[in-house]
This record gives sequence, C-alpha cells and structure tokens, in this order.
Amino acid sequence: MKKEQIKLDVNNMLVEMVGKEHGISEETIDDFQEKTSAIHQKISEDKANGEMGFMELPKQSKKLISEIEKEVQKRKEYKNFVVIGIGGSALGNIALQTALNKPYYNIDSQKRNGKPRLFVPDNADPVRLKSLLSSLDLEKTLFNVITKSGSTAETMSQFLIAREAVAKEIGEDELSDHFIATTSKDSGYLRVIAEREDFKTFHIPDGVGGRFSVLTPVGLISAAFCGIDIRKLLEGSADMAERCSSSDLKENPAYLNGLLHYLAYNKGKTISVMMPYAHQLKDMADWYRQLWAESLGKKVNRSNKKINVGPTPIKALGATDQHSQVQLYMEGPHDKIITFIEVENYDEKVKIPEKYQDIEGVNYLGGHTLNELIKTEKKATELALTERNRLNETIILPEINEYTIGQLIYMLELQTVFTGELFDVNYFNQPGVELGKQYTYGVFGRKGYENMKKEYKEKPTHNDDWII
Amino acid sequence: MKKEQIKLDVNNMLVEMVGKEHGISEETIDDFQEKTSAIHQKISEDKANGEMGFMELPKQSKKLISEIEKEVQKRKEYKNFVVIGIGGSALGNIALQTALNKPYYNIDSQKRNGKPRLFVPDNADPVRLKSLLSSLDLEKTLFNVITKSGSTAETMSQFLIAREAVAKEIGEDELSDHFIATTSKDSGYLRVIAEREDFKTFHIPDGVGGRFSVLTPVGLISAAFCGIDIRKLLEGSADMAERCSSSDLKENPAYLNGLLHYLAYNKGKTISVMMPYAHQLKDMADWYRQLWAESLGKKVNRSNKKINVGPTPIKALGATDQHSQVQLYMEGPHDKIITFIEVENYDEKVKIPEKYQDIEGVNYLGGHTLNELIKTEKKATELALTERNRLNETIILPEINEYTIGQLIYMLELQTVFTGELFDVNYFNQPGVELGKQYTYGVFGRKGYENMKKEYKEKPTHNDDWII
Repeated sequence: MKKEQIKLDVNNMLVEMVGKEHGISEETIDDFQEKTSAIHQKISEDKANGEMGFMELPKQSKKLISEIEKEVQKRKEYKNFVVIGIGGSALGNIALQTALNKPYYNIDSQKRNGKPRLFVPDNADPVRLKSLLSSLDLEKTLFNVITKSGSTAETMSQFLIAREAVAKEIGEDELSDHFIATTSKDSGYLRVIAEREDFKTFHIPDGVGGRFSVLTPVGLISAAFCGIDIRKLLEGSADMAERCSSSDLKENPAYLNGLLHYLAYNKGKTISVMMPYAHQLKDMADWYRQLWAESLGKKVNRSNKKINVGPTPIKALGATDQHSQVQLYMEGPHDKIITFIEVENYDEKVKIPEKYQDIEGVNYLGGHTLNELIKTEKKATELALTERNRLNETIILPEINEYTIGQLIYMLELQTVFTGELFDVNYFNQPGVELGKQYTYGVFGRKGYENMKKEYKEKPTHNDDWII
Repeated sequence: MKKEQIKLDVNNMLVEMVGKEHGISEETIDDFQEKTSAIHQKISEDKANGEMGFMELPKQSKKLISEIEKEVQKRKEYKNFVVIGIGGSALGNIALQTALNKPYYNIDSQKRNGKPRLFVPDNADPVRLKSLLSSLDLEKTLFNVITKSGSTAETMSQFLIAREAVAKEIGEDELSDHFIATTSKDSGYLRVIAEREDFKTFHIPDGVGGRFSVLTPVGLISAAFCGIDIRKLLEGSADMAERCSSSDLKENPAYLNGLLHYLAYNKGKTISVMMPYAHQLKDMADWYRQLWAESLGKKVNRSNKKINVGPTPIKALGATDQHSQVQLYMEGPHDKIITFIEVENYDEKVKIPEKYQDIEGVNYLGGHTLNELIKTEKKATELALTERNRLNETIILPEINEYTIGQLIYMLELQTVFTGELFDVNYFNQPGVELGKQYTYGVFGRKGYENMKKEYKEKPTHNDDWII
C-alpha cells in the first residue's frame, strides 16, 4: 500500500463488533461476490459504450488541464472569483475550496498568497446576491457561469443580474474580461450567449451529469484559480480508479462500502450520516449528500416497478456535532450508519498550554495537543457507538491534500453507482424535480409551459383554520 | 393578528391535502386536545416550580440587558469578537448572526457599520483554530468563553490556547481586557479562573440547559456586540410566549406543530427536514437540529422503559437543495416531514434584467424579480410534494428581523418540550454523550477516570482484513 492511500475500515459494520441483530456477516458479504462481479462486468461494458462519463475524468486530456492553467496565468489580476451555479455546479467548487485551502482563506490575504477570494452564491436569494455584488470590486472580479443546459433558472437569473452590474460599472465592452462560461459543447442557451458575448468557454462533457462533474471544468476551474493543484487531484482519482478496477469486494473500497450501505438499508438503516472529524471536510459531506440523495432516491426501479427507495444522507461534523447529534445517534432508533472520516495528520499541530495546574477539571488538558483531543474524541465516539451496536465505519485519510481528496471523490462516485446497481435504479436521472421546475416555468411565463401555470393556479386553496 | 406575527400553515399535513394513508385527520388532532390540556397544565406547574428556565427568558431582567449593552459601549474599539464555545454555546450565536446581520458581514466593513467581525471556531480542529488566531489582530480581539460547567474539553482547550496567544502578544497584564467568561454563577472551573484573572463575567441561569440558552448571555452578548437589537429579539419571544399561553391546539402553534410531528413520527415519518427559503435562516435550521435531536433522541421513557425513540432532524436550504435533496424528498421513502420556512418580504428586491430577448430559454426570466423566483420555487416545490402526498408545512415569517426570529426561537423551544411530553421522555438531559466524554477524560488522564482509560484500551482490535 502506498503511503498516501486512503483506507476504509468497516469492522464496526460487522456482526463481530455490533452483534447479529444489526451487524452484517462475512457470509452475507461473500454471498454478494457473484452479483458484484456481474455488476462490475456491466459497469465495464457501460464504460466501454461511453455511458460512464465520470469514469473517464481521472485520465482526461492534458490539453484541458493546460488550458485551465493558462487561463489562470492570463487572469492573475483578479481579486475575486465568483461561481454562478447551483447544485452540481456549485457543491464541488465549495467542497474543494473548503477542503484544500486554509480555513479563513477569504478573509486573510496571507492565506491566499495572491490568489482570488472565492464566492459561490448558489441560491436565488435576493439578499445574498445583492449583498455580494455590493461588496465586490467588480473591476477585479471574474465570474464563472456554470450550467450544462444553459436553462437553469437560478443560474441564468444570477448571471443576468451580475452581467448588468458589471456592464453598469465597467461598460459593455469589457464584459468578456469578466465572464467565463462553462457549459455544454454543442447545445444550450449559455453557449449561444457566450458566443455572442465572446466569453471564454469551457465544456462539460455530455456524458457527465451535474453531480458527477466536480472533476470537469465545473470544479477544476475555480480550484485552479484558487491555487489548488488540480493535477494531483486527478492523480488521486486515477489511482483510486485503478484500485477499483478489481471486482473483489475485499479489495475494492467503493464496492464494499456500497454493498454494506445497501445491506444495512435493507436492515432498516435508512439514514446515512457522513461525519468527518475535520472542519475542512464539512463541505465534502455536503457534496456527497447530493450525490447520494439524487442518485439513489427513486420512485421506480429499472423495470418501472414502484419502490420509493433511497437512503437519506446527512452531513454532520465531528467533534462539533458530538454536542448536537450524537445523543440521538447513541440512543435514538437503530436507523443509521455513521461514516466517520478520520485524518491521521492534520496540517497543524497545536499544543494545549499547561496552565491552572491547581484546577482539577482543567489541568488534565495541558501538555496534550488539540490534535490528540479531536482524534481521541473520534475514537471515543466510535467506541461508544459500537458498544451500543450502532453501525459505523471510518474512511481514513493520511492527510487532507489534493491526492487524498481526489481518491475520496472517485471512491464515493463509484460507490454511488454500484449501490444504484444493487437497488436497480437509474442513478443518473432526477425525474422527481421536473414537476417543481415546470410549475416555476409556467408561473414565469416560459413558452410551452402555459398548462403548468393553469395547473399551479388551480391547486386547492389552503383552509385558513389551519394557518395559525 | 399583529402584522409581524409569524404563522404556521399546516394544511399539507392533513388528509384533505395528502390523503388518508399519510395525512393526519382533524379528528385525530381533536382527540389529543384533552391530553394537550393536561400537558399544558403540567408545563405550567413545572414552570411555577422553577423547572422551565427557558420560559422565563423572554421577561428576564432589564438589568441584564442594560449590563450587556453597557459592555458593548465600553468595548467599542474591538474589531473581532470570538465566541469560544461548542454545541448550545455556539449554535445560537451563529444562528442569530447569520439571520440578523447582512450576508458577507465579516468581509465587508460597510455592512458591519463599525461593529466587530464575529468568529465561532466551535471545534477542536487544530487547523481551524490556528488559522483563525494567526489571522486576527489579537490587540483588537475580544473573546467570550462560554461553558456552564467550565469543564467542556473543547472549550477549555481553545481557551487555554487563545489565552496563551493573547498573553504572548499583548502581555499577561492586559488579559482581562480580552476575555469575557459566560458561565454558571455559583460553580464550575471557568468561574474560578474568571475570578482569578479578573475577567468580566456573565451568568447562565442554572435552570437553562445549553440547547435552550440562546436568549441568555450565551447568545445575547455576541448578538449585541454585532449590532443585533436584543430587546426586540426578547420582545418577539415574549409575544410568542403570550400566544402559547393557550392550551388550545388550534391557537397554539408550538403545540399544534409538536403534535403533528409526533403523530407523523408514529406513522413512520421519522425524519424532520427544516428547509428555509432564505440563506439567512440556514443556521437557524442548524440550531434547531441540536434542540430537536438532543431533546427527543432518547433510549428510555420516563418510566425507564427502553424505547429508542427520536425523530432525526435535517437542515436543508431552499432553493439550493432543490438541486440536491428534493429528488429524494419527492420519490424516496415516505419517511419525512418537510418544514418550509417562507419569508414574505426580503430585505432587498432584485430585478432580473430583460436581456437576450430572442433566446427562448432565457427571455422569460427578464422583468421578474429574484424575489418572485425564490418564492415561486418554494410554492412549486410545496405543490409538487403535496401532489405526491408528502407531508409538509410552512412557517411564514413576514420578514426576517429580531422580532420574528425571537418568536421563531421560542415557538421551536416550546414545541420541543411539548413533543418531549408526548414521547414521555426527559427532554432536558443527554445521557447518551456521557460515555464518549468519559473515554476522552480517561485517555487524557483526568483524575477519577482511570477506569475509563483501561476500558478504552481493552476494546477489541480491528481485523486488518476489513481495513482496505
């Protein structure tokens, strides 16, 4: 094993540690080896047929990477980088930034080392967007507008507002200095606008959906602008892809983890908590939350049978949430799997000073490090949960860097696909969000959605007695 | 009804809107009126006996408020205010700040209007704390150390580290200019330290637990320092307390909401999602998450019968999470209640410019406002969920201000207590986190926990075959 490989420790998912009622047996796992090999075969075939776009990303063209790096070099003078995107076009950007740049990056120029601040106002919230635009020196601000279809209402609205603000302050002629468009190569409204406005354009490969797109320009551009080593990130994902080329459950962490989640779900553990013990990883948990929920939360299986399936992902944070959620995890219903993420070596070591040595409830802390404290708390929580037969597992990162995060991203993506195969659902679509979108189009008067407006208006009114 | 009262719309929890299988009938609600009246009586008696500390907070002493305001006046020169606390000593501070100050407050001095930046590094994360301390001008930094017991390991460790940094940079003699201690009046280690160091001290009332303490100095001090009108906040909570003096389920939003959550839980809706459609409210959802999980997640009821009960709270954010979680909410298992929070009037109105009128998928946006967009998206999501018989309800805030947030806080606190009564659990304790704490004390060599260290060390080792 190479030193910086991430590891998956699933001991506390097994009957040996958490008992027969809740735990999973080696026998059950072995029984799934055959099915796993068949799924592995199917995934390989789908990949060969060009249907597994995300699996191609670790080895994507050196040309693209150079193009991104060239763009960063060319646009060094910007002080602010704003991502205009939502969902899969935002969460990966945020996750990489929080994980791989120093905390307080945006408020401390020393921590930025000449790189721009990053903002991702990923909502249609008028207060937030107006506050942001009024806080920025637009002359020194670069926007990356990200939407594959070019028709995401929040994104295009934010773009129109930001565009007007820039045009007003700097002039229409300079617009193209301030906008990058990241969108589909061949279709969509943003592509049309980008051509008209002469915006620099990057492409999202057709076969890669939003929630699997962090390793395309969607996530790589803001990362590179903010000083993250995107080559090392891709190297990490490539090495995980290599590890995951095995169909053996006991060698492939994505498959083993996917299977355990599936088996646990079928034993009533329908909630999947991701709880890193590092503030830097809190937004990786949020990124994963979309991946897991949107891919697996499905009404029908692939035979169109109604199943209403899907584990509910939860983002938590250690040690913070020990003071908020762990009471429930310890004593509430047996309906959860906790996935800890542990960091072996933090970037800093902080000693706790020896002070107030005569005060008993405080003096035991001095001489230890904050590192020891957070690591001990993780282990203590793990032991306490295990003692109460609560399923948990740990993803171990030797440290938090581009190489380990690249591995983690690829592992979780493949795990999602594998779990989707076990549930027998279409893990690449999201039909459940269509209705809401169409109502919005209808109300806003988008052509072709007139019926939806009518339907929206005809909904039963609410009884005032039940509005108190 | 006064104009600024918050409202609760529960129509979409009822059989009329979501059908018999999932919905709740008026009859069932009426059947609980008697029990509700009995609980109301019990709560009143407990209050009279001094056991409901949080209920006294809306009318707490004017003297305390003046004392806090005087402190703010006296310490106007500070540029940074750091809360050292975790769990209930942190979440309320964060929630008030995010809700009631402008977005990007910490990065834009105009938005702060002379007030200090606020930081709450609520974790034992060495990278985060070191980054923060190295980013701040400590000469201009005031710390509020918050722990009732004075023995919270994360908080006391952070304090020791911050104390040393201040002493090193500014000198031991000036320490008391830079620290406030917020702790128990009569006991605890932090009180002893504060006396020795001559720190200004504020008190947490004995009868108020951490997660119910936001309206004590725990939450009020940082709020006042950052320019939040704490009198109006308390006024809002007092007016909600007045509304909740009724035992009538159809008049008391805390009781009605608590009952509906309880009934839904018993129908398999074990997950409670709070989804505000305003970025400013995202951390209110996180604050609520502790309140709900720690109060209701319990192994035994008050007759000591094992019940392993407790709804799992989830924080979500609209419209952002429409692009992440709504697919699951629409199509996954029928195991959720979604509580939307809607804002009638946002602080800003942002027009979407009319541009690219020849491009069909974009031109329908122009002329509308971002306000219309986010409000339409909320309504559209609500309708779509309801159409699929998914339980949802809406808390309506006329606007986001101190008065409405004060109401919301009190309503959710009382709702938690009422729901705890229905579940028949002790909603003020958190026995499930003790074991993990004790392991940590043991490993760290705290006196009296020698056995825990032994127990920690004797746990079965992990099988390497399952670490891949």
